[in-house]
Parts: sequence; C-alpha cells; structure tokens
Amino acid sequence: MTGADLLCDTLLVNGIDVCFANPGTSEMAFVAALDRKPQMRCILGLFEGVVTGAADGYGRMTGRPAATLLHTGPGLANGLANLHNAKRARTPLVNIVGDHASYHLKYNAPLTSDIDSLARPMSDWVGRARGPAEVGATAEAMIVAARTTPGVATMILPADAAWGDTSHAAARKIDVPKMRAVDDQQVAAVAEALRRHPGRIGMVLGGEAALAGGIELAARAAAATGARLFSEVLPARVSRGRHLPNVERIPYPPDLARAVLKDIDLLVLCGTDEPVAFFAYPGKPSRIAPEHCEVMTLAAKGDDKLQALRTLAEFIGAKAIVSPRDAAPVGGLPSGTLTEDAIAVIVAQLLPENTILAEEALTSAQRLYALGASSAPHEYMMVTGGAIGIGPPLATGAAVACPERKVINLQADGSGMYTLQALWTQARERLDVLTIVCSNRAYAILKREMANLGVDKIGQNASRMIDIDDPALDWVSLAKGMGVEAARAATCEQLADLVRGGIARQGPFLIEAVL
Amino acid sequence: MTGADLLCDTLLVNGIDVCFANPGTSEMAFVAALDRKPQMRCILGLFEGVVTGAADGYGRMTGRPAATLLHTGPGLANGLANLHNAKRARTPLVNIVGDHASYHLKYNAPLTSDIDSLARPMSDWVGRARGPAEVGATAEAMIVAARTTPGVATMILPADAAWGDTSHAAARKIDVPKMRAVDDQQVAAVAEALRRHPGRIGMVLGGEAALAGGIELAARAAAATGARLFSEVLPARVSRGRHLPNVERIPYPPDLARAVLKDIDLLVLCGTDEPVAFFAYPGKPSRIAPEHCEVMTLAAKGDDKLQALRTLAEFIGAKAIVSPRDAAPVGGLPSGTLTEDAIAVIVAQLLPENTILAEEALTSAQRLYALGASSAPHEYMMVTGGAIGIGPPLATGAAVACPERKVINLQADGSGMYTLQALWTQARERLDVLTIVCSNRAYAILKREMANLGVDKIGQNASRMIDIDDPALDWVSLAKGMGVEAARAATCEQLADLVRGGIARQGPFLIEAVL
Repeated sequence: MTGADLLCDTLLVNGIDVCFANPGTSEMAFVAALDRKPQMRCILGLFEGVVTGAADGYGRMTGRPAATLLHTGPGLANGLANLHNAKRARTPLVNIVGDHASYHLKYNAPLTSDIDSLARPMSDWVGRARGPAEVGATAEAMIVAARTTPGVATMILPADAAWGDTSHAAARKIDVPKMRAVDDQQVAAVAEALRRHPGRIGMVLGGEAALAGGIELAARAAAATGARLFSEVLPARVSRGRHLPNVERIPYPPDLARAVLKDIDLLVLCGTDEPVAFFAYPGKPSRIAPEHCEVMTLAAKGDDKLQALRTLAEFIGAKAIVSPRDAAPVGGLPSGTLTEDAIAVIVAQLLPENTILAEEALTSAQRLYALGASSAPHEYMMVTGGAIGIGPPLATGAAVACPERKVINLQADGSGMYTLQALWTQARERLDVLTIVCSNRAYAILKREMANLGVDKIGQNASRMIDIDDPALDWVSLAKGMGVEAARAATCEQLADLVRGGIARQGPFLIEAVL
Repeated sequence: MTGADLLCDTLLVNGIDVCFANPGTSEMAFVAALDRKPQMRCILGLFEGVVTGAADGYGRMTGRPAATLLHTGPGLANGLANLHNAKRARTPLVNIVGDHASYHLKYNAPLTSDIDSLARPMSDWVGRARGPAEVGATAEAMIVAARTTPGVATMILPADAAWGDTSHAAARKIDVPKMRAVDDQQVAAVAEALRRHPGRIGMVLGGEAALAGGIELAARAAAATGARLFSEVLPARVSRGRHLPNVERIPYPPDLARAVLKDIDLLVLCGTDEPVAFFAYPGKPSRIAPEHCEVMTLAAKGDDKLQALRTLAEFIGAKAIVSPRDAAPVGGLPSGTLTEDAIAVIVAQLLPENTILAEEALTSAQRLYALGASSAPHEYMMVTGGAIGIGPPLATGAAVACPERKVINLQADGSGMYTLQALWTQARERLDVLTIVCSNRAYAILKREMANLGVDKIGQNASRMIDIDDPALDWVSLAKGMGVEAARAATCEQLADLVRGGIARQGPFLIEAVL
C-alpha cells in the first residue's frame, strides 16, 4: 500500500468520502489511489477557487469536512481566497496539497515554492508528511484539527510520501475530542450581566448557535431579558424563515451597524468574536459596538455553544419555547422594470421550503436577509471572509452535501466572474442549483466606498476600474459555454416566471437578472 | 498630497505608466489618486490572475515593469499563481497590494490576513509602508528591486498609508544600478572549457541572451566550438524565426530531455540555472544533464548576459556574424480532420512577421516551437513556472505592450479555463489578440503523467479528474459571453481560413480548434 492509499483510507474510515479536486502531476499517485477507492466521490473543479469554495459549502451544510486535492504552491494559491472564507466561517475542511518529491526540492525546479508559507495565513493547522512513514500520523492530526477547531487543516503531501510504501501501516478511526463545555461560572457571569441591562442587550450568534436549534435556545434567553438576537455581519450560515425567531443581521456598512447597535449596553457573544467594522475609514472607529458597551463571551468559537445556551436559559429561568412573532408577510410580487429590491422580494417570496441560499450580492440583495424572516424555512450563507467569488462554489458544495434540497445562488456579476467555472461542475454533477446573477455591470460596492472616502466625482481612471459595462458580460452565453442552461430577465414578471421554472426543474439553471 | 499620490507619482516619474488592477475598498485612496493621474493607463482584469499575468506579459515584452494593484490577502492570493510564473520568468513587475489601515489590523476584521507570508514565496522582494512617511522610500526600493533582480517586487500599502498626508515629500527619479558585468576571469574559464569539449557542448540561453541580439552573439561562440544552443525547458521569451540561428528547446518530458542532452559533456549557462526535471519520478534522477556533464555559469540571471557573450566571442576569436542555416520550410498546409500537429503547422505557416506567440498548449503544440525555426520572425513565450492559466493574461499584457504587433495565444482548454476572464480585458481594451484554443477536452498531460507513474488503466475516479468532456466546454459561447467574437474549426481547412481571418482583422478573436 502506498502513502496515498493510506491517506485515502484514513479519510474514508473517518467519514470523509467527498474529495473536491484539481490535481496535477505531483498528485498522480494520490489520483491513482483514489481510483482504487470507489467509495470516495471525486468532484473536479476547473479552477482551485471552485474546489476550496465547494468544500466550504459542503462543510457548512454537513458540519463534516470534505477533502480537497490541490496541485503544489500555485494550485494552493488559487484556492486560498476561498480557504480564507472557509477559515473565517470555521468550516471543517481537510485541504491536501501535493508537493514535489522531497529529494527534488533542492533542485528548485520551476514549480517549486514555499507551500508552508502560502498555506499558513489561510489555515488553522498546517502539517507536512516528510515521507511515507509520516502520512498516517499527519493525516490523523489533520482530521483532528479540522474537526476540533473547527477549521481549515492543510496537509502537504510530497510526491514521494504519496508513492512510497506504507504496507506496515493501517488506517485508523480517530476519536475526535468533544467541543469544550463552557463552565457554569462563565455562564453565571453572563446571566448576571443580562439581568443588569434589561432591554439593552444584543446576543451575537455564530456557528451552531445561529442554526435552528441554537436560535431556539437563544430566543428563550432573549425573551426573558429583552435581548435582541444578531447574526454576524457576514454569517457562515443562519437558519431563517417564519418558523423561527428572527435573528437580525448586523449591517455591513459600519455607520449603519453603529446605528443598529447604538442602544446596546451589553453584547453577548456566542460562537463569534466581537463584530467590528469590515474596513477602516478615515476618522471613524474600528469598533461598531458603542464605546460604553460591555462585551462578554458566553461561548467562544470552538466551545459547545448549545450547551452554553441551554445552561444560560436554565440559569435565568427561561425555559419556555418561544414562538416566532408573526412576521410581516413578504408582500406581493413586484412588477415592471427589475430593481435590486425587486430581485430580493421575488426570491424571498418564491423560495421553496428547505432552500439553501448562497448569497453573494451585497449591494443587490440588501433586503433579502431581512425578508427571510417571513419566508419559507431556509438556510442563509454569505461571503464570510470578504474574499469575493465564494457564491457559485459555495452553492456547488452545498448541493453536493444536500442533493434533496434546492440551492439558490443569488450572485453579483462582479464577484461571480471570479469563479464562474463552478457552473461547469454544477453541469457535470447535475447539481440542483439555481443561479440568479444580479447583473448591474459594476463593482457597485466600490462606488459607495469611493463616496465613503469623500470622493464625490468618479473620473476616467476610477471608472475604468469600477464599471464593468464595456463590454457587457453576457451571462447566458457564459453559462451555455459551461453546459448550464440559462435565460435572461429584464422585468419582474420575467424574473418571477424564470425563478418558478428554475425551482420546478431539477439540475442547474442560470438566470441573468439585468438591472 | 496623499501617500497614494506620492506612490503614483513615483511610479510615473520612473517610467511605470501602466497599471493592471482589480482594486477593492482598502485601495480606494489609490484609485482616487490614479483618477488624478491621466498619464497612468489603468487596465482592469475581472480576476487577479489576469492582472498579474498581464503585467508579466507586459514586462516580458518591454523589459520594464508594469504596476499591479491588488486587494488585500485574498486579492493577492488570486494573483499568486501568475506572479509565480513572472518570478520564474525574471519579469520586472511592481506588485502593489492594499491592506487594512494599520491601526485596524488588531481588530482582526474578516478580511485580515498575513499578506507578508502570502507574498514572500512568489516575490523577489517584499516591503510594507507602515505609514505615509514610508511610502516614498518603500516605493523607490520596490522599483529598484523589480528592475535590478529583475523580478517581482511586492509593496504592501495599508489604507492609512495611502490616504495619509505626504505633502512634505516629492516623487524622485531613481538611478537603477546597472546589471553586474561578468569579469574576464569567469569568461576566460568558460572559453577554456569550450576548447576542451569541441562538438559536445550545450549553451543554455535565458533572459536577454535568448533574444535576437543575445542569440546572434551566442551563435558566434557556438559556431566556433561546435556548441548547440538551447533555450530553457519553459522559456520566458525566445526570439524565433528563419532570420535567426536556431535555439533548440530542451524537451519538457525528462526522458526526452535526457536523450537530447546525452552527448553533452559541457553545459554553459547564460542567464539561467541548470535545467532540471520539471517533476521527479520514482527511480529517475532529478537532473537531466548527463552525470558526467560539467556545468559552468557564463552569466547568472542578474548578470549582463550580452556583455558576457560579447567577451566570450572575443576570447575565442569568434567574431564573424553567423548566418542562420537554411531552415527546412514548415511544409504545406495540412488538410482534413484537425490534429494537434496540424494546429502547430498551420500556426507556424501563417503567423505574420513580428508576431508575439503566447503558447500554453504543452500537449497540443509540441512541435510549434521547433517549427518556429522556419517561420517568420516572432517571439515565443511560455508558462515559465508551470502555474497554468498564464496564456490568456500573458497575451493580454503583451498586446498592451506592443499594440502594433499581432499576438497569438495558442492555448490548451484546461489551462485556459483558469483565466478565461482575460478575454473580457482584451475586448474592453480592443487588444489585437488571436486566441486559438486547442480543445482536446482533457487534462491530456495528466494522462501521460499517469503512464509515467506506471498506471496503465485509468478508472472511474481518475477519469473524473482528468477528462473534461462532460459537458464539453463551448469556447465560442464563453468568448461571446465576454464580448469577444469567436468561431469553431473542426478541419484543417476551417482552421487555416479562420487563422487567416483572425490575423487580417484588428482586435480580439477566438478560434476553438476542436480535436
């Protein structure tokens, strides 16, 4: 058995049976090993940003890691932006990167690079199997790191470690340590603080605390203390819908975020860090919580958030299940010329139960999250790390994870161009993804950011870097080029019809919503 | 004046007046500064791999750096693969990466990452302006590094350094140190060695030594000593054509490379490192030169190669200009069903004088380089670092650098998908690029590599990672989606007609050559 076989077996015996991949020559031993393991589902992305973003989507939906397979330093580099999003989403992910055979490195062949240095910033853990004898232990450490952080664990696999002999070794199922339980003292301190600030409390939910079970627990404490529930600014995943208590999203623009939080005296963090401004602006603070606001951690990111919330509810005597308030209905379908807001309303109205929404349309879909309080039950996922190009891969991975659910990728055109190759994987794997491209033909967010910087007039050079209307991208052709059927909508009626059709069919479909 | 203005002025006064860019919020002060400098040509790429690859193409053709502008860690990450190629090509390039305002970093906002760690592996120099007061000196050091290495110099520009005040400072024109002259003793030692191995010598030419002037000088020494002239395995740029002495390319497959070099007793390096196997294979050596072969350096990569070649020719008394041998004509145009070889012959036959050939079709265009010995004069550029996805951006940058020349990008489909967004930039800038996609619908090179590993049967999982025929990519639609006209050729006659048409027209055009 080769090192590559041992690695595959270790993955499989530990329940990791999906591998998103774009291998190269140095990974051929691993590919040969995968060929001997039909239990492993291998899914090709035609660019590594698709591979890592899909693994992120898979991990966000299942809570279990998928594997990736990337080709040396440049292949890893191409996947780093979406690994950054996965790391920020705390997605469990095992990221396998091939390297030259160890003895070949000193020759500095053209593809040689410092993979460790590249991997570290976007990984929670990095390890290297220096030979076949180290493959088993390194793989096990990688899996433990991915599952317990949880986060991105990168294993560098030199070609000779992959093709070398490991017949003495056997794949082992690993006991993954449980999440750290939050001790009673910490919970009691939070309970005590909650009593001090009735009606002026925010609870920020991340990780499992932002999923249905966590939201229900948090809502009990919130109801008892007059707290508001918030998600992170760009949440990895939040359960949404009229069946659940509402979790407000902290707005992305820092001024708006500060306005939303201005009456909060106590911010309780459950599975998140303190929310801060996404970017700094001259003369404005980096924090978004009010200066006087006390910030307390109920559960850190790696802690057992549900246990902490359960104990908290107990300590403050908030045991009753909270019914969601009657959410205002989304309202009727809009008509006439398509607007950004109309896209959000149409999607919120029509999305079927159990939809997974991968949203990467910050400027176009501003109201979609809020409207979700009145929609059918769904899961909402965003670009956690601000590295654009996550939407199409995220939808791809979510569809692999949940083949029985409809996935809708509401996607900006500028960011969509970063990883449009994901459409091909959706076509190949017959994934049930409906992509709606909000085609405003600009990096619209940057126009606002210029204004935030005090620039009121955009000249020739700036416009050449912000507008993408010359030539206009034709998303119907782009989709067709990758084997995905597509159509264009310019009115609300056309969009609603196409969304209905896209939901009714099985398999990938793309709608270009022209603004 | 802001730090960003000072940086722009420093670039401009030092002759850097093209900026390939994909900025984000943290670079808005830089964008605002560019808006005040109409002398700077700003060219948007819809993905950072396009940005850095285009800067590489520009630098390879002009010998002068273009600037890039990238958005924090993930933006840099997306550009790293082609920065790797640029570094391996020794292309002068100034790579500017925005970062959060320095005081914002400690808040670990979602887009924060260790940019220095990401930049180092693919940069020859990395610097950070820790505030506006450091912008001038950092920019100057960056330019010196880019021009003297030559290579990739990365400057990290925090937002507060960009928007901060630098009105006390002024942009300075910098004296760039000359290339190191090779001393007479080193040249004399090579001359002496050349006399010891008549007829069993290889000279490997890189950098300026592989361009017309260098080749003519090297050919004199070669004629006098019976040496053969070689390019690197994947050269950055070689001048080719029937007007020049032939420079053989060392083959990419190590076994073939070893066969070509087997009778070489002395390898003289001029502007290159010793060529080695691109990858290691079990039981095969990493070197490709014969074991007994002596390897000497006439000029290192940063040395003055032309001076060294001139002195060498003098020392061995080889002063006469060498006429190129009569190269065998390419031969008539092929007919019938399209084959890989036919594509190479058609391009070699039809390419007009002064063409720039950006070739990233390793398996399909194998004979194209060799055929170039008999073609009209042209420049040949390849994927130096093995990071795929360089072809379309390289062609883009070369076309910006040389608007009066036809650029032909002979492109594999698998690698082309990595940076297909370059087509949009070609359309927007009306660049005279003819793209020919060799559509074999597979990572064909990996099939050979599986065989090299001793795997003779490719099963389901391996095939799912190597074949890209399901669904077939439709390059005509993909090009149309990005505003580039395109057509498909399935026979030699169709391809020849379309190539003639593509050459005759101005502006971008794409041909899908279906194999």
